[in-house]
Amino acid sequence: MPVISALYEPVATELGKVCAIFDDQLFSDLPVLNELCSHVRRFRGKMLRPALLLLSGKACGGLTDEHLTLAAVVELVHMATLVHDDVLDDADLRRRFPTVNRVEGNEAAVLLGDYLISHAFHLCSALDSQFASRRIGQTTNTVCEGELQQVHHRGDLELTEEQYLQIISRKTASMTATCCLLGARYAGANVRTTASLEQYGLHMGIAFQITDDVLDIVGSEESTGKTLGRDLDKHKLTLPVIHGLSAASPNECRHLRQLLSASQPDRPALRTALEATGSIAYAMQAARQYVESAVGFLDPLPPSESRDTLQRMANLILEREQ
Amino acid sequence: MPVISALYEPVATELGKVCAIFDDQLFSDLPVLNELCSHVRRFRGKMLRPALLLLSGKACGGLTDEHLTLAAVVELVHMATLVHDDVLDDADLRRRFPTVNRVEGNEAAVLLGDYLISHAFHLCSALDSQFASRRIGQTTNTVCEGELQQVHHRGDLELTEEQYLQIISRKTASMTATCCLLGARYAGANVRTTASLEQYGLHMGIAFQITDDVLDIVGSEESTGKTLGRDLDKHKLTLPVIHGLSAASPNECRHLRQLLSASQPDRPALRTALEATGSIAYAMQAARQYVESAVGFLDPLPPSESRDTLQRMANLILEREQ
Repeated sequence: MPVISALYEPVATELGKVCAIFDDQLFSDLPVLNELCSHVRRFRGKMLRPALLLLSGKACGGLTDEHLTLAAVVELVHMATLVHDDVLDDADLRRRFPTVNRVEGNEAAVLLGDYLISHAFHLCSALDSQFASRRIGQTTNTVCEGELQQVHHRGDLELTEEQYLQIISRKTASMTATCCLLGARYAGANVRTTASLEQYGLHMGIAFQITDDVLDIVGSEESTGKTLGRDLDKHKLTLPVIHGLSAASPNECRHLRQLLSASQPDRPALRTALEATGSIAYAMQAARQYVESAVGFLDPLPPSESRDTLQRMANLILEREQ
Repeated sequence: MPVISALYEPVATELGKVCAIFDDQLFSDLPVLNELCSHVRRFRGKMLRPALLLLSGKACGGLTDEHLTLAAVVELVHMATLVHDDVLDDADLRRRFPTVNRVEGNEAAVLLGDYLISHAFHLCSALDSQFASRRIGQTTNTVCEGELQQVHHRGDLELTEEQYLQIISRKTASMTATCCLLGARYAGANVRTTASLEQYGLHMGIAFQITDDVLDIVGSEESTGKTLGRDLDKHKLTLPVIHGLSAASPNECRHLRQLLSASQPDRPALRTALEATGSIAYAMQAARQYVESAVGFLDPLPPSESRDTLQRMANLILEREQ
């Protein structure tokens, strides 16, 4: 059992059951698979998406077995994305353990990601109604589009803020939105409340990705537990950089462009340059606005511990380790 | 529209519609995706799996829109597997066109495969009943297991024939079995007939993979249109090699082991060695037995053009281009 954040206390029991479902899904008669999957379990992380789903459900009504199944599904999807991301990004420090690709090779990582996504869909198809399968399939389509769009625009210094927001809405926020929507829907929430929670999930997801991108530039590997500077290495333009390129003086701009295209990435220098252009502050301000919007979408909910937790989660996005 | 084999004539119209559904699934508002997907369309190949599904259906009763949807689903799953296989195998000559990974990089290939599988599941969830989703999810789980097992046993000269058959049953035959089962089921076939067609699909799938593996050693790239000798390059042991290692004299065995572990693979030499040990003939005889079993499982079906075609398809496995 991973350590589950005290923040998720209102749904701690349910999260424990979700872990059990998740572990059960990974069990195979093939020792090699169990070994590979043990790596996945080791870097399970904070169960953010299951927590969003369960808290959304509890904030709207009661939780059912379907919630537990769906929470396991979204975590399987998320792990599949992470495992494939690691192949793409060549990351080796995710969550303080060697990633799957270092341990077993990129091929095993591609296949393991496929195994996880396959299990996610199979588990989802165990429910009576196709609604969740349709919604999750739509979401994974969208996540893929966002990721492909991002890869395509690598090194594109003309990337606009609007395009960036479209990318992160697709690759990150679509899933957090879906978690909240499913939680609400399967708790019997009405259309308006369900839509409102979906918007909460979408806005907090965008804020989450923006701060993630800021951390990649300014964060410390010790605190975050993952390899940083990946975006710079891979020439992915994120909000601070996009702002920097548009707000900088000609000299600052030239310097920025040099930093961005350097063969040996210099993260501290990039941080300094972007702090000078006010771009880190700009990005954090944008994140703040999305967090405020997200919290606003919680208004239709009756007061509850779960609602409070969702609010706290949104606000904590702005205080992530630096 | 790809050229559809005249062999599939009884379901030619339906296959045309399946192509349209498939193309529609690949369409995105993102130009980069459409471009990537155009590569997928170019190497669509022979639509074997959709044909199996539709012919099984027609042999049991009538075809419905659900058949068309499911046929598109299984082809999307198959294309996803091929695209990911190419990342794993570094193949560059599949179907006489540069594979996706050469054109756009391995990252795009991983993501494109994810996009295809996501669309497959989303499309499948459009059906009323979860049955097909459950079955296809179970199958993709099995395919992943087979692929992972295969990667794990790379270079393992102790691999037994039983383990090899388990691998190919999972990674190849489980899908052909599922195509036939779904075709029958959605045409209203009874339990016995459905199970029989499932066995046809399983046995012909095993035969198909065995001959594929033989071709990888003895085939000509011009005729087959794909890069050959991949198994040797990647130290994947297949039936001819497994037999060779067990049937060879000590000298022949030593020579074989040298060939298998050589840094510069020598396909013609391997072919010669395995012909000398009677291993090519052994593998083809095994394939022949699986084909005969497959054809036997067609007996419960009433006579029809579709049933004849399924029989012909099984027999043609033994006559594939060398």
